Amino acid sequence: MLDRPPEFYFPAPRRQQFCSQCGTPVSLAVPPGDNRLRDLCHSCGAIHYQNPRMVVGSIPLWQDRVLLCLRAIEPRRATWTLPAGFMELAETTRQGAARETLEEAGAEVSIGELYTVIDIPQADQVHFFFLAQASSPALDPGPESLAARYFALDEIPWEQLSFHSVVSTLQHFVADAAAGHFPTRHLSLGS
Amino acid sequence: MLDRPPEFYFPAPRRQQFCSQCGTPVSLAVPPGDNRLRDLCHSCGAIHYQNPRMVVGSIPLWQDRVLLCLRAIEPRRATWTLPAGFMELAETTRQGAARETLEEAGAEVSIGELYTVIDIPQADQVHFFFLAQASSPALDPGPESLAARYFALDEIPWEQLSFHSVVSTLQHFVADAAAGHFPTRHLSLGS
Repeated sequence: MLDRPPEFYFPAPRRQQFCSQCGTPVSLAVPPGDNRLRDLCHSCGAIHYQNPRMVVGSIPLWQDRVLLCLRAIEPRRATWTLPAGFMELAETTRQGAARETLEEAGAEVSIGELYTVIDIPQADQVHFFFLAQASSPALDPGPESLAARYFALDEIPWEQLSFHSVVSTLQHFVADAAAGHFPTRHLSLGS
Repeated sequence: MLDRPPEFYFPAPRRQQFCSQCGTPVSLAVPPGDNRLRDLCHSCGAIHYQNPRMVVGSIPLWQDRVLLCLRAIEPRRATWTLPAGFMELAETTRQGAARETLEEAGAEVSIGELYTVIDIPQADQVHFFFLAQASSPALDPGPESLAARYFALDEIPWEQLSFHSVVSTLQHFVADAAAGHFPTRHLSLGS
């Protein structure tokens, strides 16, 4: 940890000004053999690619109730969400979903099948939600959550949900719960 | 394009030396409220997160034959692969799979259902392969391919395939083709 932390911001913008390898100002140009603009370093030759990010989360269940977390952070502070967050290096999507569920809700879950894969091109993201079973009803919301609680399916606060991917995943889940069958679904929001 | 291109390299390493926003040397530290080491800038406050990347591709079919490309580039030069590559910003996984199929094989395909999602944590990647139907047998391999051709399922060059994710996807595809049913499969390679 730092002695006197500056005002850190999250995250660094995608658009680069300087080369991350040698510190020289970069310029936007199409590299040889490529067909897209990239941040290029004319000093050391680094090509700085940008790629979409993955968000991984779960649909934790305890006795037919689904766990939602009240967001303590922007965007969409004070709205309800399924526990989810950016996938980290050196983990699987399933491990990431379990980690985020523990970090945001303090819930220990057994992660089951992949349920939704959701393209969100306007945000440069793909979201993954897994079916999950809690091993106890115990919750301990982390610093990114104001609260965490289990909702019966007919109590879900549809008007106060955080993101379209959460709404879409829960809508499919409620419909599939009536049918008792939860196939993996690939969805696209926008574009 | 550049007048006198330097020797560009691909891609810039994940580990940063300098802040991409202000050019100051970064240091590896745990930001306040976080639990992982990140590249931090103590000058402008940028936190440089790193996340896994997605590779998107297809299993293009023409009259029960599957399209493979002979790689012209490292890694695994001169081995056969399904057309696939890194997902770009502002596209869906499906659009990315169609783009890569066109770029690497010159094949115009209609992208169908999501078939495999494959975690590869040791490479910090998740691979996606879609079922795809070619609209004609025409091929025009791009600069990343030495050749492209359609193989009958009993002609697949199993010993000369490029990556485990390609082997695994084709193994499932051949088995599912016998059954005539192609469910979305979530797989994990390693870890």
